[in-house]
Amino acid sequence: MEIQEAVKKLKENNKLLSAYYHAMGVLYYDFDTVAPKNAVGGFSETMATLSEITYKLSVNEENFKLLDLLTEHEAELDEITRREVEQAQRGLKLLRNTPMEEYIEYQRVQSEANSVWHEAKAKSDYSLFEPVLKKLVDFNRRFASYAEPGQDPYDYWLNEYEEGFTQEVLDKYFEKVRSALVPLIRSIGEKQQPESGFLHKFYPAWKQRALSDHLMQVMEINRDDCAIGETEHPFTTGFNKHDMRITTHYYENALESSMYSVIHEGGHAIYEMGNCDELTGSPLFGGASCGMHESQSRFYENIIGRSKAFIELVFPKIKEMFPEELEGVDADMFYKAVNRAEPSLIRTEADELTYSLHVLIRYEIEKKLMHGELDTKDVPAEWNRLYKEYLGVDVPCDREGCLQDSHWSGGSFGYFPSYSLGSAYGAQILHAMRKELDVDALVKNGEIGKVTEWLREHIHKYGMIKKPAELIRICCGEDFDPDYYIKYLTDKFSELYGL
Amino acid sequence: MEIQEAVKKLKENNKLLSAYYHAMGVLYYDFDTVAPKNAVGGFSETMATLSEITYKLSVNEENFKLLDLLTEHEAELDEITRREVEQAQRGLKLLRNTPMEEYIEYQRVQSEANSVWHEAKAKSDYSLFEPVLKKLVDFNRRFASYAEPGQDPYDYWLNEYEEGFTQEVLDKYFEKVRSALVPLIRSIGEKQQPESGFLHKFYPAWKQRALSDHLMQVMEINRDDCAIGETEHPFTTGFNKHDMRITTHYYENALESSMYSVIHEGGHAIYEMGNCDELTGSPLFGGASCGMHESQSRFYENIIGRSKAFIELVFPKIKEMFPEELEGVDADMFYKAVNRAEPSLIRTEADELTYSLHVLIRYEIEKKLMHGELDTKDVPAEWNRLYKEYLGVDVPCDREGCLQDSHWSGGSFGYFPSYSLGSAYGAQILHAMRKELDVDALVKNGEIGKVTEWLREHIHKYGMIKKPAELIRICCGEDFDPDYYIKYLTDKFSELYGL
Repeated sequence: MEIQEAVKKLKENNKLLSAYYHAMGVLYYDFDTVAPKNAVGGFSETMATLSEITYKLSVNEENFKLLDLLTEHEAELDEITRREVEQAQRGLKLLRNTPMEEYIEYQRVQSEANSVWHEAKAKSDYSLFEPVLKKLVDFNRRFASYAEPGQDPYDYWLNEYEEGFTQEVLDKYFEKVRSALVPLIRSIGEKQQPESGFLHKFYPAWKQRALSDHLMQVMEINRDDCAIGETEHPFTTGFNKHDMRITTHYYENALESSMYSVIHEGGHAIYEMGNCDELTGSPLFGGASCGMHESQSRFYENIIGRSKAFIELVFPKIKEMFPEELEGVDADMFYKAVNRAEPSLIRTEADELTYSLHVLIRYEIEKKLMHGELDTKDVPAEWNRLYKEYLGVDVPCDREGCLQDSHWSGGSFGYFPSYSLGSAYGAQILHAMRKELDVDALVKNGEIGKVTEWLREHIHKYGMIKKPAELIRICCGEDFDPDYYIKYLTDKFSELYGL
Repeated sequence: MEIQEAVKKLKENNKLLSAYYHAMGVLYYDFDTVAPKNAVGGFSETMATLSEITYKLSVNEENFKLLDLLTEHEAELDEITRREVEQAQRGLKLLRNTPMEEYIEYQRVQSEANSVWHEAKAKSDYSLFEPVLKKLVDFNRRFASYAEPGQDPYDYWLNEYEEGFTQEVLDKYFEKVRSALVPLIRSIGEKQQPESGFLHKFYPAWKQRALSDHLMQVMEINRDDCAIGETEHPFTTGFNKHDMRITTHYYENALESSMYSVIHEGGHAIYEMGNCDELTGSPLFGGASCGMHESQSRFYENIIGRSKAFIELVFPKIKEMFPEELEGVDADMFYKAVNRAEPSLIRTEADELTYSLHVLIRYEIEKKLMHGELDTKDVPAEWNRLYKEYLGVDVPCDREGCLQDSHWSGGSFGYFPSYSLGSAYGAQILHAMRKELDVDALVKNGEIGKVTEWLREHIHKYGMIKKPAELIRICCGEDFDPDYYIKYLTDKFSELYGL
């Protein structure tokens, strides 16, 4: 086959897959937001049928040959096509090297694990989950050895989720995080906490919906390109740069919850809406990695959204909407309340300061599991020991401990670090941005669009064309350096708590 | 190929098509209800890709051979499979006999016609639309001659939309309707109209949403099987009996509008939710025909929903929700107001009594167009003449005249009669139902579920297994007879207007 012809075939396949993923994405969004409850049967069946079709479109000898030919001639390809081929090969590496029966068995175990985990969590009974977790750990260790024989299995999985990252990098990263944050959090623990009870008065959902609209406007999100829905767990999904969906959940006794969900998910949406037009319909549409995606959502949520400047910008409107609930509260009090930092049990509810320690605990446990150094039976004890050591909290039950997250039940080992890396990327990006922009002044003036413009030019436009480490170099002019993150957190929280 | 093997192949193809139609249906519903405006580009592209795939799954030599083999052996098939084959053959007849280039050109003209019609309607300028309408008429006449050489083209299209119906049947039907209704409407025109201004006070959308919930509850629609959304034009779509969607539109100055949309669309949903389980994933899932579907929606909307018994059932709750707006209004006044009958210009806003005359006018025009007896240039004049003759109204402009409906711009000639047939079926069904049930007492007692149960047993469970005419025979024990419809309308409106 001629290279030109092969490229044409690749693009046709991409276009076809992109239509299927679009349909499946809308089915999923619809199911989670508006479908009636009993739609589940038909939904699952249609998703299974479409998944099988897309699977067969990628996993077949003809496609393998096509990709191998293109890889061989990669020097002749343009950058986008070259990266498309590289990503397709990355995605197929595991499947091409794993015996089919094992992979099918793994999928069966995964789906079993999901329902077992739900039950175990509801009953707070780890012993129900342990046998299936053990199977999943074994599968993941074995699959890593098929995909990259001889490589450390945890390094294989880390690289799958955050391309270019290994334990060597992450060990150093987390050691810095741990040694800086543990004493900082301890010092804050001795200080008086700011008042935050006013965030938990009654805030009716219909008024919070209006606040969401306002926040999206402040973020300069074009609503003709981005809709908002409501789900139990907020998420973002995008089909192309003109069709993004974010969701939130309104708790009527917690104003902060949906407010920061909207800003967080809005950040994810802004990232993809900023992809260059060439990526429409390409598998490279989206974010460079989980960590890079998280860096953008957390940038808007924490670095912008929990900054003094942002609170000064939006507080007058919030107070206007909730004059009684916020009587006697000023912008400074609101700023302090939404930045309240305190060791806690649940990762997804953790504050900006303590968040990475939750991730570190999971990192340490995953590493030992992948190395066969920790028996799955001993996960709860290890979990509880680490929570006590790093965060100083006692875990009362496994439901609020090692059963809280769904990731392991889905067979994901190595995903968690990207959550923390996202925050660290963000602080380094902020440092670079500040060389060119007066970020605080722009935010205070309601010119968040200018911040977004900078991010678009340095990060968003690339979609998945660049690897995360490359993007950091492009954006910041240097390699990833966690010191910016440590400094950002130390400065912000020292000032907040008067250390 | 063995018959058993052929049946297996048919069922596999049906299952696959059903997954695609499910995905496309959800894409469409999502686009119309919640997608951001600019999603249109990606939506259209994905729909086009999926349409092409489903087209190719049906329109190919292998499938033709399969269907022909099964048709040959139809005596050996069970009833559902036999009907699936018959319906597939019906659906393919046109495509198998039309030169491909012509069909592609037709699709191009159709899509052009849609945007031209929008513009022409907005500008109320028929001359813009006329040339493309002419093309569509010519295509439809020619296609009919390809599909059924020698047959009257309008008979061909009527049978496509309402299987088993011809001009011979419909001429008699409409003659009865015309000769009974024209004088009745004239007599009512001389009577005092009931007060209805209270329906047009300010009814906030959020309160109307609560009324929709209540109405769906009264109709005993299981909300775990049926969701409600909001669109410009209300519609119903269903993916299986446990995943139905209805939509409505809230006009804050017209309480009646959404109220009867919800009941109407709820009737469509109830029909499909009542299909027997064997039809899940079968192309026979749904309603027997457009007319039969409309018969069910209009049964709930008019025969039940605009009955005295129903108003007595729901009015106390409506008054409780809108005490100020309905001060001084009682159930009888409400009953009379929602049954106000008056000649008007717009079909979709017409009342129960005058509705079929709107349809008759379209039937007469379509018949002449299909026979080449009316030049497309003369459509407005003919339209206006008939509105004056049958309804006594002067058409002020084509926007409120012959440009009001989208059907012709979509290439549909022969669809309209099913709207009227639906009402006529409903009256005959009511007559049969009354032999077994005290319908008014059940409705007044809030036992609409028992009415639905009867309809399920006699109509809904069959989906598309039976033809409309067969269903009427099964349900009513006799052939379709429009006299029931005439009698129903004459009795109801004579009583309402004291004739």
